[in-house]
Amino acid sequence: MKNFQNLSEFYLKQLLNDTIPFWEKYSLDKKYGGYFTCIDRNGRVYDTDKFMWLQGRQLWTFSMLYNRLEKRESWLNIAKSGADFILKHGRDKKGNWYFSLNQKGTPLTHPYNIFSDCFACMGLAQYSMAAGDKKAERVALETFYNILKKRGNPAGQYSKAYPGTRPLMSFAIPMILSNLVLELEPLLDEKLVERSIDDAIDNVMNIFYDKKTGLVFEYVSPDGSHSDSYKGRLINPGHTIEAMWFMMDLFERRNDQKNIEKACDIAMRTLKFGWDKEFGGIYYFMDVKGNPVEQLEWDQKLWWVHLEALITLIKGYRLTGRKDMLKWFEIIHNYSWKHFHDEKYGEWYGYLNRRGEVLLPLKGGKWKGCYHLPRAQLVISKELERLA
Amino acid sequence: MKNFQNLSEFYLKQLLNDTIPFWEKYSLDKKYGGYFTCIDRNGRVYDTDKFMWLQGRQLWTFSMLYNRLEKRESWLNIAKSGADFILKHGRDKKGNWYFSLNQKGTPLTHPYNIFSDCFACMGLAQYSMAAGDKKAERVALETFYNILKKRGNPAGQYSKAYPGTRPLMSFAIPMILSNLVLELEPLLDEKLVERSIDDAIDNVMNIFYDKKTGLVFEYVSPDGSHSDSYKGRLINPGHTIEAMWFMMDLFERRNDQKNIEKACDIAMRTLKFGWDKEFGGIYYFMDVKGNPVEQLEWDQKLWWVHLEALITLIKGYRLTGRKDMLKWFEIIHNYSWKHFHDEKYGEWYGYLNRRGEVLLPLKGGKWKGCYHLPRAQLVISKELERLA
Repeated sequence: MKNFQNLSEFYLKQLLNDTIPFWEKYSLDKKYGGYFTCIDRNGRVYDTDKFMWLQGRQLWTFSMLYNRLEKRESWLNIAKSGADFILKHGRDKKGNWYFSLNQKGTPLTHPYNIFSDCFACMGLAQYSMAAGDKKAERVALETFYNILKKRGNPAGQYSKAYPGTRPLMSFAIPMILSNLVLELEPLLDEKLVERSIDDAIDNVMNIFYDKKTGLVFEYVSPDGSHSDSYKGRLINPGHTIEAMWFMMDLFERRNDQKNIEKACDIAMRTLKFGWDKEFGGIYYFMDVKGNPVEQLEWDQKLWWVHLEALITLIKGYRLTGRKDMLKWFEIIHNYSWKHFHDEKYGEWYGYLNRRGEVLLPLKGGKWKGCYHLPRAQLVISKELERLA
Repeated sequence: MKNFQNLSEFYLKQLLNDTIPFWEKYSLDKKYGGYFTCIDRNGRVYDTDKFMWLQGRQLWTFSMLYNRLEKRESWLNIAKSGADFILKHGRDKKGNWYFSLNQKGTPLTHPYNIFSDCFACMGLAQYSMAAGDKKAERVALETFYNILKKRGNPAGQYSKAYPGTRPLMSFAIPMILSNLVLELEPLLDEKLVERSIDDAIDNVMNIFYDKKTGLVFEYVSPDGSHSDSYKGRLINPGHTIEAMWFMMDLFERRNDQKNIEKACDIAMRTLKFGWDKEFGGIYYFMDVKGNPVEQLEWDQKLWWVHLEALITLIKGYRLTGRKDMLKWFEIIHNYSWKHFHDEKYGEWYGYLNRRGEVLLPLKGGKWKGCYHLPRAQLVISKELERLA
C-alpha cells in the first residue's frame, strides 16, 4: 500500500465508472420522480416503495457530487427529481417526514423515525446549494429546527417505551447531528453551529464513550450511567467507527490534535473488539458483556460498516501517521473488495453472512441505497490524494 | 421409525427429565415472582426483564402440564408465581397487557402488541382451570373480549401504518385466535366458540391461503387480494405449518376429513417450499416471488419452526396415514435432535445459522421461553402413543 495516488484514482474510478452508473441506470423513477432503491443484483427493481431515508440520501449524494466533484447537469437533474418528489409528498402537515411512501408518493408509514427528517434535511440542504433552490433551503432549515425540537423524544407518540422506568438516550442522535450541522453550516448562524458542535462532541466523546471499557455505547441513561439491559449493553462497532471520522472532521477543523488521537484510539479499539478473528470482517452488533444479543443478524458483515471503517482508518492515518491504521486500512480494503464488490454487475452487495458469503443478492433495499458507497469512495479518494 | 411406543416415551422423557427441569432450576424469580427467560446456554440468567409473551407462555406451560399430564403441586406453584406476578403488574388501566416489565414488575414497554394479550389470556385461562382461581378466569375472559374488540387494529395508537394507503391484515391474528378459542372453550359460550372457529377456519383456509401458489401469505388486503410489497410477498413457512395443526385440531373435532387432507397438503407444500436443499432445515422467511426479503435473519433455522413442523407431520400422519408425512417427520426429527438439542446442558438452542451451527448460545431470550419445546414434546408424545 505504497502508491496512494494509484489507489486514490482506483476509488474515484470505481465511483464514476461502477457505482454511480448503476444508480443512474436503474434507480430513476421517470414516471413519478424520486428513486427506486429496492434493486436486485443485476439492476431489476423488485419493489417500488420509497423510503425517506434513501430518498434523502440519494438526493444528497447526487447534489454532493455536483457540489464537490463536477458540475454535471445530469447529476443536478437526478437530484432535482428527488427534491421535487419529496418536497411534494414527503411531509405531514406538522412538517414531520414520513418514513415511507408508495411509488406515487402517497404516505405508507407515519413519521415515527427522526432519521427520515435527518436525511431529508441533509439532502435538501445539499441540493439547495447545488441548485440555488430557495424552497429546498427553507424546508431544510425548517426540518433542522424541528429535529432539534424533537430530539429529546424522537419517536413521539410512536415511542413504545413506558416513560420513566428506564429512560435511555440513543447514540444515533448526537452522532447524526454532528454530521448534519456541518452539512448545514453555510445556512446556519455561526453560534448555533459552534454550540451544536460542542454539544455533539461532548455527547459522543464523554457521555456515550465509556472510559472503563474504552467503547462507545449505543444507549446510555440521561445521567450517563449504563443500564444492564439489551439496549444498555449494545455495542454497534460500525456505528462507533463511523462516528469517529465525524469527530475527526470536527477536531481537524478546531486543530485539536489531542482529541484526534483519542478518536483514533477509540476507533482502533472498537475495530479490534468487533473484528471476527475466525472469518474476518466486522460484526454488526455485540453485547459489551459477551451475552447473547437480541439482534439475530448480529454476526453479519454489512457494507456500510466496512466502508465507514475504511474512511476512519485512512483519515486517521493522514491525521496521525499511525501505522496500525494504515495496516488495518489495507486489511479492510482487501476484505471489502473481495467480498462486497460485484465484479459482474457492479456496485456492492449489502449483506454478507458471517463467512463473507452473499446473504441477500441485492444492491439496494429498504435500508441500502445510493449513499455509503459513493460517499466513502469520494472521501477515501480525496484522503488518499492528500497522502500522495 | 417403526416403534412409536419407544419414540413416544423418548419425547415424554425429554420433556420431564431435560426440558422442564431446566426451567424449574433456572427461570424462577424467587424474589419478585414471575419468570426469568433470558437464560444462557448453561442456565445463567443474563437479563432480568420480563416479556409478557414469555410470562404468559410459561404460566400456560406449567398450568397445562398440571391439567393434562400430572397433578404435581410444584408445577402449580410455579404457575401461581407467574399468575400472581402478571395479575399484579401486567396490565394498564384499560386492561391492555404491557409488552415488557422490569424484574420488579414496573412497566417498560407500552401495550403495543396484541400477542402480549393473547399469551397472558392463554396462560391465565389454563391456570384458572388448574387452580380454580376465579380472578384469573375473570381476567382471562376480559382479555379475550378485549382481543376480539381490538383485533381489527391490534397496534392501536402505536401502529405506524398510514391509514388507507395499503391496508393489510395479518395472518398471525386469526391463527392465534384459532388456538386461543379452544384454550378458552370451557369458559366461553358455545355459540361464540363455534362462530370463532368458523371465522378462524375461513380466514386461514380461504383468505390467507392462496389457491394459485398453494401457500399461505402472512399479509393480505382486506378484500383478500395480494399486495406486491415486502409484507405482501412474505411467506413464513413455520407459521403456516404451525397453523395447519391448529386447523387439523379444529377439523378433527368436526370430523372433517376432507379439510384435514387439505391442511396436510398445504403443510407438505409449504415444508418443501421452505426446506433448505443445501444445508437442511426450514428457512425462517421467504419472498413468494423469490425477491430478497427485508428480514436479515431469513435463512436461519429456528427451534419453534422445526418443533411445530414435527407436530404437524405426526398429527397429519395419524389422521391421514400419509407416508410422506411420516418420512418427513423422521427427517425433521433427525435434523432437530442433531442440531438444536444441547447434550451437555439440556434444552434446545433457539437460533442456528443456515448451516445448522449455533448462532446464539441461549436457551431463552426475549422471544424464546418455556413454551414451544415442552408443548411440542407433550403433543408429539401423545400423538405417537395413539399410533403405537
